[in-house]
Amino acid sequence: MSEKLVPRSEDFNEWYNSLVLRADLADYGPVRGTMIVKPYGWALWENIQQGLDRRFKATGHLNAGFPMFIPESFIKREAKHVEGFSPELAIVTHAGGQELEEPLVVRPTSETIIGHSFARWVQSYRDLPILINLWNSVVRWELRTKLFLRTSEFYWQEGHTAHATAEEAAFETRQMLDVYTDFAVNDAAIPVIPGEKSEVERFAGADRTFTLEAMMGDRRALQSATSHNLGQNFARAFDIKYLDTSNELQYCWTTSWGLSTRFIGAIIMVHGDDQGLVMPPRLAPYQTVIVPIYRKDGEKGEVLAAVERIRQSLTAAGVRVKVDDRDNLSPGYKFNDWELRGVPTRIEIGPRDVANHSVALARRDIPGRDGKQFVSQDGLAQTVQDLLAQIHHGMHAKALAFREAHTYEPADYDSFKEVVQDGFARVWWAGDNADEQRVKEETKATIRCFPLDTPAGRGKCFYTGRETDRLAIFARAY
Amino acid sequence: MSEKLVPRSEDFNEWYNSLVLRADLADYGPVRGTMIVKPYGWALWENIQQGLDRRFKATGHLNAGFPMFIPESFIKREAKHVEGFSPELAIVTHAGGQELEEPLVVRPTSETIIGHSFARWVQSYRDLPILINLWNSVVRWELRTKLFLRTSEFYWQEGHTAHATAEEAAFETRQMLDVYTDFAVNDAAIPVIPGEKSEVERFAGADRTFTLEAMMGDRRALQSATSHNLGQNFARAFDIKYLDTSNELQYCWTTSWGLSTRFIGAIIMVHGDDQGLVMPPRLAPYQTVIVPIYRKDGEKGEVLAAVERIRQSLTAAGVRVKVDDRDNLSPGYKFNDWELRGVPTRIEIGPRDVANHSVALARRDIPGRDGKQFVSQDGLAQTVQDLLAQIHHGMHAKALAFREAHTYEPADYDSFKEVVQDGFARVWWAGDNADEQRVKEETKATIRCFPLDTPAGRGKCFYTGRETDRLAIFARAY
Repeated sequence: MSEKLVPRSEDFNEWYNSLVLRADLADYGPVRGTMIVKPYGWALWENIQQGLDRRFKATGHLNAGFPMFIPESFIKREAKHVEGFSPELAIVTHAGGQELEEPLVVRPTSETIIGHSFARWVQSYRDLPILINLWNSVVRWELRTKLFLRTSEFYWQEGHTAHATAEEAAFETRQMLDVYTDFAVNDAAIPVIPGEKSEVERFAGADRTFTLEAMMGDRRALQSATSHNLGQNFARAFDIKYLDTSNELQYCWTTSWGLSTRFIGAIIMVHGDDQGLVMPPRLAPYQTVIVPIYRKDGEKGEVLAAVERIRQSLTAAGVRVKVDDRDNLSPGYKFNDWELRGVPTRIEIGPRDVANHSVALARRDIPGRDGKQFVSQDGLAQTVQDLLAQIHHGMHAKALAFREAHTYEPADYDSFKEVVQDGFARVWWAGDNADEQRVKEETKATIRCFPLDTPAGRGKCFYTGRETDRLAIFARAY
Repeated sequence: MSEKLVPRSEDFNEWYNSLVLRADLADYGPVRGTMIVKPYGWALWENIQQGLDRRFKATGHLNAGFPMFIPESFIKREAKHVEGFSPELAIVTHAGGQELEEPLVVRPTSETIIGHSFARWVQSYRDLPILINLWNSVVRWELRTKLFLRTSEFYWQEGHTAHATAEEAAFETRQMLDVYTDFAVNDAAIPVIPGEKSEVERFAGADRTFTLEAMMGDRRALQSATSHNLGQNFARAFDIKYLDTSNELQYCWTTSWGLSTRFIGAIIMVHGDDQGLVMPPRLAPYQTVIVPIYRKDGEKGEVLAAVERIRQSLTAAGVRVKVDDRDNLSPGYKFNDWELRGVPTRIEIGPRDVANHSVALARRDIPGRDGKQFVSQDGLAQTVQDLLAQIHHGMHAKALAFREAHTYEPADYDSFKEVVQDGFARVWWAGDNADEQRVKEETKATIRCFPLDTPAGRGKCFYTGRETDRLAIFARAY
C-alpha cells in the first residue's frame, strides 16, 4: 500500500492489472489462466447477480442447475458451434481411476446439453415457453490471463429459452438485451450501445447476436453482454420438437443470453481513476466507509460510540456500511486505502464532529476538498442516500460525456484509420465480410455493432463508397 | 401424473427415485453419474442457500470464488487427503487442443487450493482470522447415481477458515456445527443429532470431524452437514504461517465445513409421505398454491378477480404464492399435483367462496378433510402465515417423535443386531477401529456419531463389555 498506483493515463494496462490485485478484487490461480475472486470482488459479483436475478425473475425466468460435464459428441452436433468452440475446450479423459469411454468436455457454454434436455422436456405447445437461467462457471482455455477479462474459467449467467414461434424468440432476444441495458445504466452507471453483431462476430450457432458495447477509459470497446437468437439451429441439432395446437410436430425456436465477470472489468475500466476504483453506488460492496479519528484515549470512547450509533442508523436505512476500526493504521492511510478500493462515500468522525453533532462526508468520484462537506448527524442516512444517487447519476453522465467526446464520424478510410485509434467510429457501412476482415487487419478495429438506435436515412460507406442505410460502430476492443 | 406414486411404505427406494422425477426436482444428466437440477429443485436449493448464507454472514464470513481446476500435485501434499480422494477424481489431461504438462484435477473439495492461497495471504497475526465460504459444485466420481444423494457432481458450500490459535479453530468448528443445527431445525424442520465422527469416519486430513445426523423415513441415517477441525495438517502441508505478536513464525490452525444438495435428499426422506413431498414451509419454493374453481364462463371472471386480489395481498405480506390457472386441468388434478410437489398450504376459491368472502384452506401435512378449513378472506395473509408456522412446528415434532420411536438402547450385541435394522442404536462404546469395522461388516451399521449432548455417567459397551463414558449412535446410513 505504500507504493503509489501507476496513473491510469500513464499505463492503462499496468494500472488495471495492479489495481485488481491491490484493491483485493482478485488474484491469479495456481493453474495458468485461472482466477481467484477474493471476497471484495465476490461481493461485487453478488450484487451484480442480485441486480440481474431480480430482473430475470420479474420477466418470468427460473433458475436451474446443469452439469459441467458434456459428452464430447454433443458439442459436435451443431456444425458452427463445434467450429467456434473446439480450440478452447478442456477435456476430462480419466475419472474414478479409469480412462473414460467417451471423453467429457468441461462446458464452454451449455447450449448443447440444454438442447438435449429441452428435447426431453417439451412435448406439446403447453410445455412452452421454457424460460430458464443458470448461474455457473464455464471454461474456455486461455493462457494469456487478464483478471476478469480473459481467464480460462469465468463466472457468468447463461439464460436459455425455447419458444413455439419465431416471433416469441425474437421478442425474448430483444427483451433480455433491454434487461441488460437497464441493469448496465441503472445499476452500474455504464452507458451502453445496444446493437446487433455482424455475421463475422456472431455467436457460433446463432442466427442473430445482439450485444451491449461500452467504452472503457482507454477508449477501447468492451462487449458487456450478449443475447442470441438461435433460430431453429439447436432445435434441429437436438431435435427439440413440439405438437402445435393442430397436432402437427414443429421445431422450437431457442435463444440464449449471458453476462459474465467480464462486466467487473467494465466497471473498473469505465469508472476507475488515478486513485483507484470508483464503485458504482448501487453495486458497491460497501456504499460508505466510516473512519473514526482520535488521538487521546479519552477521545476514543466517545468517537467509537458515535460511530456505532451512525453505523446502526445507516444499516437500518439499508446503506451498506463498513467501519474501519483498525487501530494500527492512520486515518490518512485508511482514506487512501478505501479510495483505492472505490467506496463511493466516506464518513469521518473525530472529537470535534462528536461535539458539533456533525460528520465530514466525502465522495469518491470527486477526490480532495471539493468532494468533502460537513453535514449534520441528523438525517445522515438520508443525506448519504441522496449523495449516493447523485454520485450514480454523475458517474453515468461523466462516462457518457467521455464516450461522446471520443466518438467520431469519419467520412473516408484515411480519417477512419486515425480516429479509430482514439475511440469509436460511427460510420455508414456497406462492406462485406472480407472488407470487414481487411479493416480489422489494417486498423485492429472491428465492427462492435450495428446500433439499434439509428436515425432513418442513408449515407456513403467510408470504405466502399457505396450508399447504404446501415450504420456501424467500429472500435478496437478487448 | 395419472399413474399413482409407489407408496413410501411399500418400496422406499422406488418411492424416492420416482418422486424426485415426478415432482420435477431433478433429472438424470446425459453423462452417467450427473444430475440436472430442475427449476423447482433449484428454487428449493436457493432458499437453502439464503438460509445458510444469512447465517454465515452474521458470523463474519465472506464469500469468494476459487478455480475448479487444481494441479494434481496439490492433492498429493496432504497424505491422508490424497488417500481419501484419489479414487474419486476426474482428471483433465487435454486443453486448448494440447496435452497438458501437468494434469488437472476437477476439485473434489478445495482444502488444497485454499491452503495454497492462504499461505500467500497470511503474513502476520493481523491478517487472521480468514473466514471465507464458497458456493460451488465439486466432483467425486460416482457411477451409481441416486439423485441428490449420490451424484458425481454436486452443489454445496464449503467454508474455509484460518486462525492464530487452536482454541479459535476449535471454537469455529463448533460454531459452524451450531449454525447448521439452527438451520436444520428452524428452517428445514429436521431434528438432528450433533456429534463427533469416529476416527474411521473422519474427513481425510482432519483432526476432528463433527456431523449432524438425521433419521430418514426408512429409519436410516443421513449425514446432513459436517464441520472439520483440520488442526495444523493443511497449514504444514501448504506452509500457512504467520508472525505472531512476539514476531515468531507460527503455523495457522484451519477448519472447513460444508452442506450440500444431499440436504435436499434429507428434506424429501424426512418429511415425504405416500402422497409425495412435504416441503418445510420456510424453505418451500411456493408456500401456498391458489387453485381457482369455476364451471360456467360467468363464474370465471369473478373467481379470477378474487384470486388475483388474494395473490397480491399474500405476496405483499411476504408469502411465496403460486396461482395455478392452467385451464386444461381439473381442480382435482391440480390438488394431486401440488400435493405431490409438497406445497405446504393450498387455497381453493370457487363462486360460493367469493360470495361468502371466504376460501378453503388446506394443509399439506394433514391430507384430506381433517386438514381443510374454511376461513375468511379478511386477514388471510396472517391466517396463512400462522398456519405455516404451525405446520413447521408440527413437521419438526412429527420427525422427532418418529426418530425417538425408532431409537433403541440395546444392552448386548444380539439385541443390537436386531434393533439397528429398525433405527438408531444409542449405545455405550469402548471398541477400537477394528471392532467398529467388524460391526459394520456384520450389521451394515456404522458409528454415525458420538453425540455432543451426552449425559454424564458410564455404562457397559454392548460389544466389548468394557466400561466406558463414551456414548455412540450406530445406524445404517446413506
